[in-house]
Amino acid sequence: MTQTTRIVLAQRPHGEPTDDDLRIETGELPAPENGQALLQTLYLSLDPYMRGRMDDAESYAQPVGVGETMCGGTVSRVLDCPGGEFQRDDIVLGYGGWQSHSVENARHLVQLDPDRAPVSTALGVLGMPGFTAYSGLLTIGQPEPGETVVVAAATGPVGSAVGQIAKIRGARAVGIAGGPEKCAHLHELGFDAAVDHRDDDFVEQLTNATPDGIDVYFENVGGPVFDAVVRRLNTYARVPVCGLIAGYNATSAPEGPDRMPKLMRRILTKSLTVRGFIQTEFWNDQKSDFHRDMSGWVADGSVKYKEDVVDGLENTRDAFRGLLTGKNFGKLVVRVSD
Amino acid sequence: MTQTTRIVLAQRPHGEPTDDDLRIETGELPAPENGQALLQTLYLSLDPYMRGRMDDAESYAQPVGVGETMCGGTVSRVLDCPGGEFQRDDIVLGYGGWQSHSVENARHLVQLDPDRAPVSTALGVLGMPGFTAYSGLLTIGQPEPGETVVVAAATGPVGSAVGQIAKIRGARAVGIAGGPEKCAHLHELGFDAAVDHRDDDFVEQLTNATPDGIDVYFENVGGPVFDAVVRRLNTYARVPVCGLIAGYNATSAPEGPDRMPKLMRRILTKSLTVRGFIQTEFWNDQKSDFHRDMSGWVADGSVKYKEDVVDGLENTRDAFRGLLTGKNFGKLVVRVSD
Repeated sequence: MTQTTRIVLAQRPHGEPTDDDLRIETGELPAPENGQALLQTLYLSLDPYMRGRMDDAESYAQPVGVGETMCGGTVSRVLDCPGGEFQRDDIVLGYGGWQSHSVENARHLVQLDPDRAPVSTALGVLGMPGFTAYSGLLTIGQPEPGETVVVAAATGPVGSAVGQIAKIRGARAVGIAGGPEKCAHLHELGFDAAVDHRDDDFVEQLTNATPDGIDVYFENVGGPVFDAVVRRLNTYARVPVCGLIAGYNATSAPEGPDRMPKLMRRILTKSLTVRGFIQTEFWNDQKSDFHRDMSGWVADGSVKYKEDVVDGLENTRDAFRGLLTGKNFGKLVVRVSD
Repeated sequence: MTQTTRIVLAQRPHGEPTDDDLRIETGELPAPENGQALLQTLYLSLDPYMRGRMDDAESYAQPVGVGETMCGGTVSRVLDCPGGEFQRDDIVLGYGGWQSHSVENARHLVQLDPDRAPVSTALGVLGMPGFTAYSGLLTIGQPEPGETVVVAAATGPVGSAVGQIAKIRGARAVGIAGGPEKCAHLHELGFDAAVDHRDDDFVEQLTNATPDGIDVYFENVGGPVFDAVVRRLNTYARVPVCGLIAGYNATSAPEGPDRMPKLMRRILTKSLTVRGFIQTEFWNDQKSDFHRDMSGWVADGSVKYKEDVVDGLENTRDAFRGLLTGKNFGKLVVRVSD
């Protein structure tokens, strides 16, 4: 029997998830059967969508059950694989969740080559967040050369890839981030302009950064940033809706005035396209193109990435709360073991 | 000199347009030059979009200037055409506005054949409203056989065409209208179900009428109807946004709660497409298909239409106010002269 330290959903959070909502416990894993693998978690991915899985509201995926281990993508080391699909010490991408060890179906695992790229990138720029940026921007956003693409949470793994892919496609990339350090980083990534949503003159900064208006707004955030962006959207602008992190901890509808009629009127009068998506929709059709393009862009330096590595499973809950308020700087991963 | 009786925008309305906002006056028209035609208005089209033209808010079209004649599509009789493009007594489709006579550029006029279809249909099922339904439903809504299409203001010229084209494409058509008489008419048009938004159990009626959810919602209306519909939208549903008549007289944002975050969250979790449009966007590419298809459907009875004819230019203002509150029953036109 192998012991695992895991974080289970003890109860559904009301607002920001507390330590009472997310209990750390120790348990025993069953021995792996044929077709399974026993894994030791090296890196755990923390992503905003996980907040949605803690609720039982209707969404695109089943919620995590109360008492179950929180879900999440993982990079792990193979300890045992009775069917022989993997060798001991192989490094694999899986979905082991918030725990130190896991038993997973071998056919759901993807082997990683540590010599090609740091294995943690399989959770970021070369993984789900990178693909989210790639598919949402290119399929829904469809930026044309010379158009203006705006993305918020722009130093995060999705936002930074969105801006850099927009540049590759010949568009102008404007990033929105919180604080001068993050904004400076956007310039290092090659964004044409960086706008700090924490500044009092945010709206004016955004106006100055988008002299020709906005043709694509890649929506990660919601909240007040969205209001400012909507006013700058050009006719026929596209808005891929990928996430709404500003509202994930909301416990009730915000007070009025009701902004929905104004949004709908803007959609009408500007012939806007607002399209929600989950990257899985595009995976089968686009995964080959993504792997080819993104690996090439990372290799030649046209897409850079930044990771925010937190050490120790015991720090996962704090790190996740920070993610929902923008405290992370780059793709947030937990290094669970070396 | 020809005298015209016209309705001019005396001042911009605040809320529902009053008779003080829309002044009736008599004026003189200049004599037509070469390339122009002097016209006598037979039918004037009244359409919801005209309310937007009375405001100076940013929209897809220039507002009507204060002191100018209100704009509008017209079917007219040619009185004089110095360049010879038309003969006297030819019947033409133009954009003469809310007046008894007009002088227009001959090249902006389209000759109508009274033997092929009643000439007033050029303002309705065979004109702009019919094309709005056709292009918005087929290009954005893209209903598949067996899918459910819902449209509000369903006895209006756009809504009735949307439902009937949906049926032609093999979809289930559900119409929303106000009052039992209009709902009965929807059954005559071949809609699969009719839902009365004035009934107390409207939400329940809508649920029962859409057992498999909603795949396409053709948005004409906004307001409370939209809330009920959004809850029934299926994953990957499409929402062509054609009009928002419920809010056209609004003078401020409605009180809270703020429904926008909930709408955005639904767009995200259901991978919805919400797309505003104006029919002019599709005109050049689709006008030939439209004329062929819609003329055929009207001729073979698969698309029926209903007109609400008001007699006399002096009744235009009352009729237009009624249009914004759903008092019309069918395509609203003013018979300006015989």
